[in-house]
Parts: sequence; C-alpha cells; structure tokens
Amino acid sequence: MRIDVLTLFPEMCEGVFGTSILGKAREKGIVSLNAVNFRDFSGNKHNTVDDTPYGGGGGMVLKPDPIFAAVEHVLAESTGSTVVSSEYSTEGHMDQEGTKPRIILMCPQGKTYTQQIAEELAQEEHLIFICGHYEGYDERIREHLVTDELSIGDYVLTGGELPAMTVIDSIVRLQPGALGNETSAVSDSFSTGLLEYPHYTRPAEFRGWKVPDILLSGHHANIETWRREQALQRTLERRPDLLETAELTAKDRKTLERLKNDGQA
Amino acid sequence: MRIDVLTLFPEMCEGVFGTSILGKAREKGIVSLNAVNFRDFSGNKHNTVDDTPYGGGGGMVLKPDPIFAAVEHVLAESTGSTVVSSEYSTEGHMDQEGTKPRIILMCPQGKTYTQQIAEELAQEEHLIFICGHYEGYDERIREHLVTDELSIGDYVLTGGELPAMTVIDSIVRLQPGALGNETSAVSDSFSTGLLEYPHYTRPAEFRGWKVPDILLSGHHANIETWRREQALQRTLERRPDLLETAELTAKDRKTLERLKNDGQA
Repeated sequence: MRIDVLTLFPEMCEGVFGTSILGKAREKGIVSLNAVNFRDFSGNKHNTVDDTPYGGGGGMVLKPDPIFAAVEHVLAESTGSTVVSSEYSTEGHMDQEGTKPRIILMCPQGKTYTQQIAEELAQEEHLIFICGHYEGYDERIREHLVTDELSIGDYVLTGGELPAMTVIDSIVRLQPGALGNETSAVSDSFSTGLLEYPHYTRPAEFRGWKVPDILLSGHHANIETWRREQALQRTLERRPDLLETAELTAKDRKTLERLKNDGQA
Repeated sequence: MRIDVLTLFPEMCEGVFGTSILGKAREKGIVSLNAVNFRDFSGNKHNTVDDTPYGGGGGMVLKPDPIFAAVEHVLAESTGSTVVSSEYSTEGHMDQEGTKPRIILMCPQGKTYTQQIAEELAQEEHLIFICGHYEGYDERIREHLVTDELSIGDYVLTGGELPAMTVIDSIVRLQPGALGNETSAVSDSFSTGLLEYPHYTRPAEFRGWKVPDILLSGHHANIETWRREQALQRTLERRPDLLETAELTAKDRKTLERLKNDGQA
C-alpha cells in the first residue's frame, strides 16, 4: 500500500510516520508513507500556493495549479510513467495503468469519517491525501480532482494534516501484520459495535481502590457474562445510538431490558 | 495556558507542537505545550507501564501507578509545590492552589468531541491529556483521576496521541492572537453553523474550468446572496442535520424551501 500526503508542513507528518505502529509498518514494508510539499509545485518563482478569493472576503484560497501538479507528479511517480497533465484531468482521475487511486480532500465539508470508511479505504492500493491549512480550497480542486472529501468530526482545526494522519493511522492498523498479535486480539470499541468493558491490571489494590472480586475469581464463564453486561451498560449510558446497529443476542436484549429497568428504579 | 500531554511517544507530539499555528502560538508564549513520557514514572526498574488484564483475555492494560504519578508530577510542577500523592487523589483533582486543571482521557468510550467542547476547554488555564496506546486503561484511572473522557470520532486508532493533538489544535487556534488577522476573518464551517460556500481564486480559467461569473461581477450584494445560498445548498445536500441548530434568517428559510423544491422537481 502506498500513501502520499500533500501538505505545506511535511515535517509535521514525519514525526508521526516514523513512530510506533506507523513507523513499524513502514519499516516492515507494509506501507509506504510519503509527505510531499506541494509548495514545490507552485510553478511560480515566489512559490505562492494561495491567493485572495474572487468576490472578496477574508482568508486566502489554495490555488488549483500546485495541487493538480503535485497529484500528477505523485501519480507519475507511482506508475513510473509520465502523466500528461491535460490528459489526466479529463480521464476522471485515472492513471496510466488504469488503476484509480483515491484522492482524498480533508475538509470540514466532507463526509464524516467512520470505521466503516476505514475498512473500505484499507482495501485500496494507493491513497493520496490533500491537506489544506487554515484556508479554503479553490472549488475546482474539489470538482475536478478529488474522489473523496472526508471530515474527522465537527470541530474546526488549523489544517488537514492531523485529520489525514488520523485517517492514515486507522487504515494502516487494519493492514495484515501491522499490529502485533498481542494487540490485535483486543476487542476494540466500534469493531464490536459496543463500547469496551472496564479493564483492570495489577496492583489488585491501588490507594484503597480494589479490582472487582469477580475478575480475581478465575471463573471464566462468569467473567465473560460480567464483561458483556458492563459493555452493554456502558454503551447504554454513554452511546445508546450505537445499540441500534450493534449485533445483539437474545440474552443481550434481556440484559439491556433489565439494565433499563434498574436505571429507572 | 498550559497543556501537558502524557504519552509513551513524546517525539510524535514534538513535530506537531513545533510547526505552523501551534509552533507560532508556542513561540509567542500564548500556550505552553509539553509532552511528558509517563514511562519515566513507572516506579519499577524495568520501566513497565502495562500488564496483563485481570480476568484474562488479550491485550495489555495500562497500570494506574505511572499515570497517577505522572499527573501528580505535572501538577506539582505547574504549582511549584510538592503535591502529596495520597492527598491529591482523595481531594478530587484539586491542586495546591485550589484550581482544578481538566485531566482529559482520550478514548473511544469518551464523549464525542465537538466545536462546543473546544470553546469550553479554550477557557481553561491548564489541561492535561492522557494518551494510551493500543491498550486499555486500568479502570481506576478513569474513575479516580480523570475529569473528562473524549473521543474525536467513531473509528479505531492505535493511540491517543493524534486525538489529543487534534483537540489541542482546535483549542489553541481559539486563543487570542493564535491566528493571524488574515485567517481569523474566514467564516469557518461549524462556527457559523453552516458548511462553507465554494471558494475560487486565480486563475479565472484553469484547464477550461471557469470561475462563476458572479464572483467577477464586483456586485457585492449579489455575491453575498450567492454565497449564502451556496452555503445553504451545500449544507442541505451534505449535512442536513446541521440545519437543525444553525442560526437561520427568514430569508434563509425561504431559500431552503426553494432549494428543496428544486431538488424534488
């Protein structure tokens, strides 16, 4: 898998790409992670990548030329052939070998990112992320270049780099071999449709606060029942919306009924 | 404002803290950003910060001791006095000067982060973020140490660092002086309750795609009307849920009615 991030701040990405799970996945050759400075593709001697908006108003707008040129450079590099700019743009984001990399714009107007989209993107061979920075994008980038617009949530950020790295982190961890066995076994929140049950580890007593007796009992069936009930209860209290799509057994539904009644009593 | 991030990967944060708006805010003294490695507070000679879960199952669980010790160290450092651990923990997260820093756990079980929470946290003087890494937290950290649990969205990540940096970015940009005048003037998505209208900049024609005539007309009132309509239309198409809470004028509501009718015709 190859991932390119188009950014004005490649140094922001490098620290993240070189560390922890992403760094290990890169070392193992599971993913190639590249930060590309699109200022290098400005095509003008002042290296300008933005300009004032037509129609007036505050803020600066990212020009189309450097973004198109940087994407085309990355496409040419990944296929080993020279992509003719004018042809590329009229062929609907298709590179010379006929594969279509996803070209993803990180922006507040995008589709809200979810684990389902992560699982879909994790199947792709090549992803290109475009990160703006406290600016708008020229609309022609959106209309004629990108295949996807994504937002990681309803809050305002100074740029698209942290959102892109967040999306990349969620995709790379899904690649086979990216997580060690000891961690992939964990039943993640969202993967199971419920929030996780509470975890405890040593010491059995810390500043007077004890681990629940049941976890020290050694009775595995009871522990499983307790954990499932805790997961249901936490989801009911914090994120009842998740219960609508979670896979629930008949026993789960009975447990939920009881928890709801207890809550009202 | 002081922000401490407790992490096993401080180098992941430093690249982000030193760059762009965050880097400038730090240089200007608007915010102090510190990454603290809680492995330094393991309290054991093997520097272990995690252990297997009580009750069995896969994955590792972050131990309570290093996290409590690291938080108490940061509190002592920020108030210039030595906080006695056992006293601190029973006093409900209050430091020696009586101020209560927010101690924020980044986790999938947390409250979904929004711009409203960003605006609330931006008022605080001291924030401490706890970032786990592909592991669970011992439940006693959640119950007896943290004041807030936050999630940036419904997707699974390898750690809490990117979420913490995302939250920090959204908070720091709200501090007076953090953004230059040229950028703070932009009407952000979510701040206004609507998605942004389309932006265009030079060239007026790029690869045959032209800027809408109205933006070149110089007629400011017409441009304002067009932009508002575009913002309404984009929000209607992409995020109709935002219209429920957006501040709309009577004219906006008429425009929306018309756009809905056009869409059905």
